[in-house]
Amino acid sequence: MSEARKFDFAVGRTNPATFPIERVQRAAHAAIAREFAEITEYPGRLGHPSLRQVMARRESEREGVAVDADLISLMNGSMQAVTLTAEALTKPGDTVVLEELTYGGTIGAYRTLGIDMQGLPVDEDGMKVELLEAKLDELGEGERKPKFIYVLTTYQNPTGAMMSLPRRRRLIDIARERDIPVVEDNCYGDVHFDGDKPPSLYALSDYDKIIYMCSLSKILAPGMRLGYLYAQQELLDRILSRRHDAGGNYLAAAIVAELYRDGVWDLTEELNVSLATKKNLVVDGLAAEAADVCAWSNPAGGLFVWVRFPEDVDQDKLLQLTAEAGFHYAQGANFHIAGERVPYLRLAFGHVPDDDIRDGIPVLAHCIRQSRTSNLPPAFAGLFD
Amino acid sequence: MSEARKFDFAVGRTNPATFPIERVQRAAHAAIAREFAEITEYPGRLGHPSLRQVMARRESEREGVAVDADLISLMNGSMQAVTLTAEALTKPGDTVVLEELTYGGTIGAYRTLGIDMQGLPVDEDGMKVELLEAKLDELGEGERKPKFIYVLTTYQNPTGAMMSLPRRRRLIDIARERDIPVVEDNCYGDVHFDGDKPPSLYALSDYDKIIYMCSLSKILAPGMRLGYLYAQQELLDRILSRRHDAGGNYLAAAIVAELYRDGVWDLTEELNVSLATKKNLVVDGLAAEAADVCAWSNPAGGLFVWVRFPEDVDQDKLLQLTAEAGFHYAQGANFHIAGERVPYLRLAFGHVPDDDIRDGIPVLAHCIRQSRTSNLPPAFAGLFD
Repeated sequence: MSEARKFDFAVGRTNPATFPIERVQRAAHAAIAREFAEITEYPGRLGHPSLRQVMARRESEREGVAVDADLISLMNGSMQAVTLTAEALTKPGDTVVLEELTYGGTIGAYRTLGIDMQGLPVDEDGMKVELLEAKLDELGEGERKPKFIYVLTTYQNPTGAMMSLPRRRRLIDIARERDIPVVEDNCYGDVHFDGDKPPSLYALSDYDKIIYMCSLSKILAPGMRLGYLYAQQELLDRILSRRHDAGGNYLAAAIVAELYRDGVWDLTEELNVSLATKKNLVVDGLAAEAADVCAWSNPAGGLFVWVRFPEDVDQDKLLQLTAEAGFHYAQGANFHIAGERVPYLRLAFGHVPDDDIRDGIPVLAHCIRQSRTSNLPPAFAGLFD
Repeated sequence: MSEARKFDFAVGRTNPATFPIERVQRAAHAAIAREFAEITEYPGRLGHPSLRQVMARRESEREGVAVDADLISLMNGSMQAVTLTAEALTKPGDTVVLEELTYGGTIGAYRTLGIDMQGLPVDEDGMKVELLEAKLDELGEGERKPKFIYVLTTYQNPTGAMMSLPRRRRLIDIARERDIPVVEDNCYGDVHFDGDKPPSLYALSDYDKIIYMCSLSKILAPGMRLGYLYAQQELLDRILSRRHDAGGNYLAAAIVAELYRDGVWDLTEELNVSLATKKNLVVDGLAAEAADVCAWSNPAGGLFVWVRFPEDVDQDKLLQLTAEAGFHYAQGANFHIAGERVPYLRLAFGHVPDDDIRDGIPVLAHCIRQSRTSNLPPAFAGLFD
């Protein structure tokens, strides 16, 4: 193991190597010249009109349904949408149903807001919706009735799971029947490598309590802080009435609207090709180096590979050994709604140079082996079994 | 009155005519080339390091004291700092003391958060701090004890008042004695036309519960959405633990850090010269056209002139007549913590072309006269008397 090298698989990021420097520069030049007067205004509650239209077009081209740009509000990343929705729809002590493994940022926000998180397990087809009715029955129609169901439908973080079409339909049916809003976080939806994707929830139903959020953080750059929320008028108004930041950043929005004036797909495809290569390097590396001790996801999109390791791994030792080797990952506990130290780790590969993936995975496999406290074969049959 | 013209004095904005288009374009070009990799990262809880240093320099050059850039956190405009501080330090029903006339955005955020707003009057020297102790005595040391005191110290919105040095010192002494944090909103502090300014509260005292917020919205452009919060470590950590938006926009921060790499003052001065001209056009216009019916502020800085009109003005009629004439202003009620329809209006002049000011003020004076319900002389002696 080389000493000075760093293998940084900790945080989800896009690939800097495919960042379209010159195109963003040209877009900035044009946008500043054209929109300097608007930049001296407050952005308003919906935000940059052209970027909203570009995002409406992105949605309707992906989903095949019409999307009204005036029902889209630009957010400071989709995390603002996650937080604001929870602020608007809950008070401390209120209940929300979500995947028991989900995005750590969401868990942190909900925890701060005093939300009672009620989890459902996840498998390769996403949230186990077949358990939802029993959960809702258990919570009842009184004060524990969930204020909404939060779900990462596509390339779920951290598991990479994609919710199947039957589960999507069932989720909507149950939510509508019980009059519970559904918050669909689709921020990874366009980080797509291959295969078909089921439609987003809003494209499957006219249920008017689907709150949808998406982002440019995963197809362009998190530092743009450009996400958005799309909901029907009543819920949109209710959520925006809780917003008190005088609007999102207009300069970045103007630049990105210009960048994507002909649509988002060519730049997104360019990024995705590079990401697919990285994802394959990760899973091929795990297959070559860690098949005897690990199971892992092989997602058709997204920025993460979810790795299961034996129960007998001493997680503190694993952290220490990997840190000494310059290898950084995100612990499974960060993605568990109760912070349980589940025997999993997440590898974020989006920004990792290909050579660091090739050389890093053997380092991880070695550290996992060194952290075990027995020689027994792993007790699991697969990533979720 | 011409029919198609618009006299838009409603919203505080900077002057688009002095927006440094070419300099911002060059800054964008350089920043994107240099920082594209960082733009693909999450900005973190403090935000762009160079912009924080530029803002620390701005503060220390203005105030003459050292300011640690690592105690500054960049915000999505100072409104995020206002909202986040209240979210972190209060729960619904908690009390905050503030000027009874203050920024409408703050009032809106506090109202949403269920804060009990306890107001103190304002005069030309700012918040009437001599009434603070009695107010605090009245509120007591129990559950109504204020969680903080919010104050616009310099070029107060809407009144243009500047808090005097003795009041600043007294405010800090009382707050320290009673262990109450002070939130100093100095977002207008550098929109400065002439005369001396007393130091900011943090420069007058080592009291460690002064939470300071400032912005680039008033010296560059609100659409940048770049403000910041500066506080000592303990309070800073407490406030940032409530932040769940994954950080502020890094692209805009990188561009502005490059724009201001040699300091903020030359661009600020250029803007202020144009604003001083506009402010003088407003007050000279009022003196020529409305001296018999109005009193008004003549602020040494900021973006607003605060106008008092006779109690007998029918405010609905005034709104209607001015709207018909294309003249837009902000009603006094928007700035009153209880929404009282005080007989005042606010003129935001920052972005109004000089000719529109010259031609607009007579329109306003005419409408005020037409909206009166008596011919008696106004019952007031001045703006606050």
